Amino acid sequence: MTGHVQIVEVGPRDGFQSVGPIISTPDKIDVINRLYGAGVRRMEATSFVSTKAVPQLADAGLIVEAVRGLSGLDAQVLIPTARYAEQALASGATHLSAVLSVSEAHNLSNLRRTRAQSVSDIRDIVALLPADGALRLNLATAFDCPYDGRVPASQVCDLLAQLLAIAPRAEIALCDTTGRADPAQVTELYSILGECFPDVSAWAFHGHDTYGLGSANAYAAWTAGVRVFDASVAGLGGCPFAPGATGNVATEDLVWMFDSMGYATGIRLAELVDVALDVTALPGSQTGGRVRNAILAGSCANAR
Amino acid sequence: MTGHVQIVEVGPRDGFQSVGPIISTPDKIDVINRLYGAGVRRMEATSFVSTKAVPQLADAGLIVEAVRGLSGLDAQVLIPTARYAEQALASGATHLSAVLSVSEAHNLSNLRRTRAQSVSDIRDIVALLPADGALRLNLATAFDCPYDGRVPASQVCDLLAQLLAIAPRAEIALCDTTGRADPAQVTELYSILGECFPDVSAWAFHGHDTYGLGSANAYAAWTAGVRVFDASVAGLGGCPFAPGATGNVATEDLVWMFDSMGYATGIRLAELVDVALDVTALPGSQTGGRVRNAILAGSCANAR
Repeated sequence: MTGHVQIVEVGPRDGFQSVGPIISTPDKIDVINRLYGAGVRRMEATSFVSTKAVPQLADAGLIVEAVRGLSGLDAQVLIPTARYAEQALASGATHLSAVLSVSEAHNLSNLRRTRAQSVSDIRDIVALLPADGALRLNLATAFDCPYDGRVPASQVCDLLAQLLAIAPRAEIALCDTTGRADPAQVTELYSILGECFPDVSAWAFHGHDTYGLGSANAYAAWTAGVRVFDASVAGLGGCPFAPGATGNVATEDLVWMFDSMGYATGIRLAELVDVALDVTALPGSQTGGRVRNAILAGSCANAR
Repeated sequence: MTGHVQIVEVGPRDGFQSVGPIISTPDKIDVINRLYGAGVRRMEATSFVSTKAVPQLADAGLIVEAVRGLSGLDAQVLIPTARYAEQALASGATHLSAVLSVSEAHNLSNLRRTRAQSVSDIRDIVALLPADGALRLNLATAFDCPYDGRVPASQVCDLLAQLLAIAPRAEIALCDTTGRADPAQVTELYSILGECFPDVSAWAFHGHDTYGLGSANAYAAWTAGVRVFDASVAGLGGCPFAPGATGNVATEDLVWMFDSMGYATGIRLAELVDVALDVTALPGSQTGGRVRNAILAGSCANAR
């Protein structure tokens, strides 16, 4: 059994965003360059967002400029609204990653607008997108909401139908914002949506490892045909608006899993682990994942 | 989707065995009683094994005596050879859990005998077993060996054919000793074996979380029909003879996953987490798992 999956490294956005102490722009670019050096070819590089709400990402323009120099890197940029999409495009970004929540309560908390307002915003974003631009739509709380609990598949279907009418070529990412999705639910939801929306260009999974199911849920998505997976180097990250939602699944854990399954990611694990170790040393970082330590422990134990 | 799975709590054996400082017998019995109080109804309570090699389990006889007082608890006892099976039965144990490795190199390292010698031992153990006794056979390194790497399914088939000829009613546990199995491999191996040996009374999965795949591999086994899962409270444990193999999958992580999937374990998570927290405080313990901390963090964040 062999094949390919695509890992989207979201550490420079989802990860850095969760770190309190400001990381200098050259330090961020260094991490990005080293991830690229380890074979990462798709990345959520930064976000254009309120610099008051997220001061850590106030250097988004400089980051976009830096990643444009990395040949063959597909660098997407997270934007919460059309206004920030304009900023992102003006800075030279061509791949936008828009986000809205399936649950009204989380959308109100995260974006301070109703879902209907966000759907309208997506329409504006699509209108702004140049001919050579690409769009991903991230559906936060697609499985579980910190306020409403488990999210019914019918809610995801309803929202997705509206979104695909506006943006039929967008990549669709289902986000387990709280980390409370379970693998059977993940397989089931992608299967239902795949049948309802057979023309979706690509499905992606964005998982959190809060409850230890980051890899299990990614595997479950894989069994349902998903081949694009978000992950954060060293498990750095979390959602400041989802209580308790600490940490994306670690990139090195997913690379390990897919390598073991015979599915190539193009990322060289040893080099990635080197970057991950430095990321864990960033002041204020909250990290996760197991493979990094297993590889270190394994080296020590084998040396005895 | 609803149903049941059975969790075999192996902390009192696999977990305690890995702890250096001797835990007093009353402290062990206290943990066992509290696990029972949280709803655990199957447990690997101890092991009869060389007290020189594993001084931590020198009180096996006292533990067997203690667990016999817990009504409805199925307490299995690990034994490496027929000689120790005699000791276990003499102490009053009725459920034996025998172990041998699929790979010759690991069997030689772990049991200091060839696989052929171990198969012969299993024959002697079956002969010793009383009419009301039960037997589990644990196949260590069923997926991966610390010395030989990935283990071919054909090797598992060959060994299992010999063992089932001797012990046709035994429960069969496949053990991911190194934690290096991947979920696709797990599903595939159980599917192959299920077809080759359709009369096996029960299949079990014993996973380690060393590379973050403990839950993913348990889920993969579940999709192949496995309904018995070993786990260790707080992720306590490891195999001293498999370099780098730190930690069984945490019981609370599997209980969380199966609860979320609608599969009842009979274990009350909040009470289990209380025990797990005390287990992490045992001097010399190496623990893992994520659910314990997620629940604690969630409580704090929700209180804000």
